[in-house]
Amino acid sequence: MSQNITAFVKKTIMACEKLLQAPIKGILLDISGVLKDGSQSIPGSVEAVKSLQSAKIPFRLVTNETSRPIKTILSTLKTLGFEVTEKDLICPVPAVIKILKKDNLRPFLMIHPEVIPDFGDIDTSNPNCVVMGDAAECFHYKFLNECFRKLMGMKNPILFSLGQGKYFRDDDGLALDVGPFCKAIEYATGVKAIVVGKPSPQYFLDAVSELKLQPNEVVMIGDDVVSDVGGAQNCGLRGVLVRTGKYMRETDEPHKSVVPDGIVDNLQEAVNLILKRNS
Amino acid sequence: MSQNITAFVKKTIMACEKLLQAPIKGILLDISGVLKDGSQSIPGSVEAVKSLQSAKIPFRLVTNETSRPIKTILSTLKTLGFEVTEKDLICPVPAVIKILKKDNLRPFLMIHPEVIPDFGDIDTSNPNCVVMGDAAECFHYKFLNECFRKLMGMKNPILFSLGQGKYFRDDDGLALDVGPFCKAIEYATGVKAIVVGKPSPQYFLDAVSELKLQPNEVVMIGDDVVSDVGGAQNCGLRGVLVRTGKYMRETDEPHKSVVPDGIVDNLQEAVNLILKRNS
Repeated sequence: MSQNITAFVKKTIMACEKLLQAPIKGILLDISGVLKDGSQSIPGSVEAVKSLQSAKIPFRLVTNETSRPIKTILSTLKTLGFEVTEKDLICPVPAVIKILKKDNLRPFLMIHPEVIPDFGDIDTSNPNCVVMGDAAECFHYKFLNECFRKLMGMKNPILFSLGQGKYFRDDDGLALDVGPFCKAIEYATGVKAIVVGKPSPQYFLDAVSELKLQPNEVVMIGDDVVSDVGGAQNCGLRGVLVRTGKYMRETDEPHKSVVPDGIVDNLQEAVNLILKRNS
Repeated sequence: MSQNITAFVKKTIMACEKLLQAPIKGILLDISGVLKDGSQSIPGSVEAVKSLQSAKIPFRLVTNETSRPIKTILSTLKTLGFEVTEKDLICPVPAVIKILKKDNLRPFLMIHPEVIPDFGDIDTSNPNCVVMGDAAECFHYKFLNECFRKLMGMKNPILFSLGQGKYFRDDDGLALDVGPFCKAIEYATGVKAIVVGKPSPQYFLDAVSELKLQPNEVVMIGDDVVSDVGGAQNCGLRGVLVRTGKYMRETDEPHKSVVPDGIVDNLQEAVNLILKRNS
């Protein structure tokens, strides 16, 4: 084991102690890579969520997923055995709609066509901003160029990016997320995107506020060391990394700036540790 | 006129004097935005090239265009009235082929299908690098994801980007160039691209060397303040900006760090100035 990995493990053990010393009153869970991988549930995750529900520990599923409508995300989770409802979900689309309405913005939607109905009656005529989500297979040259031209034609261009994820693990391998396409448009236009979703502090704090708790009482569990763990830590939550989803190899170089408050094999291990501590 | 524009104009006048004081023995010309806009020649540019040829001032057409085969670039120029041959062209594809052969690299070609024959007998089996050009309408999710997965699967990933242009002016408006897609892949993979093409110093210096001149004897004329003008200046050439092509409005904010050695309305004005000086 190389020296920096040894140092990282030591730091993490110290951090795990910290994680377990302070009370944990609520939990935020990522969906992709924590509850499920592609279309499969991750072993033990259905039981882990059931354990949280039995122990009456409040939680929210905090996702950046925007390639499918909210009702599809929910029905997929139910099919996999998760007994969750819409109120358990925190998704970027309702969050950006709140901002659009507050600021009287009319978006050009660079969004997967199936997700457009989630925007309801939002006025998209004569757009004065762009909202970019994970359009997945609909990210093609013509659509990106249209988005680019819209922004270049705006007097005060505003770009919202629903998350900044680099990639996620899909059924057939790693898959590009919205982040790379947002970086493409940022570079071409010189416009810096406003991120709605993880790792935006407001997104985590809104979730904590729904639990009626303080940030230091809440733990975020995710498979993305920057977006989930670092993002949560930046606003006072604790962040736990799971070795499932996009987490690839234990020998991966430890992240330069983010040190998780704990690293666990999977969600079930995290929940068992938390329940044990709370008892 | 705002203060910073006034300062910029003053600096440019001083620079124009500098441009005309030192001898000019050779010229590098951008194609898109200088000789032609989309499928149309820019008024006066055919005559300007003829004047250079009559005056026996050596020149090269230094382009980053990689969305069409070299023979198509050449035949388009001929159709528009430019009497140029393949030896007048400096294109990124032959430049990257030289590097691939020297370093025994086998590329995954993220290239417009029509341009693949320009790579000749290059071995593309079991790739150990990626070469990314302006794939234009072929930039779609599946192709970008394939390129991303190839890089993520390499032990020592190498990414070549044929230019880093943000956009160019096409017949129906501004069009995204290769740069934004390169930034997308850089962000997703964490691999920094090696640029082959403008503004890479080696690319300009190879062109100067073909003219058998020294950098300070050569002027680059282009419509991209960063890639053409700044790139040329970075390796000792002079750089002149034309107000055609992607140059949009005189009131555009002057560039923060690049001050052209001259700004002219079009290629014809630049060539007239240079010929007048040389006589």
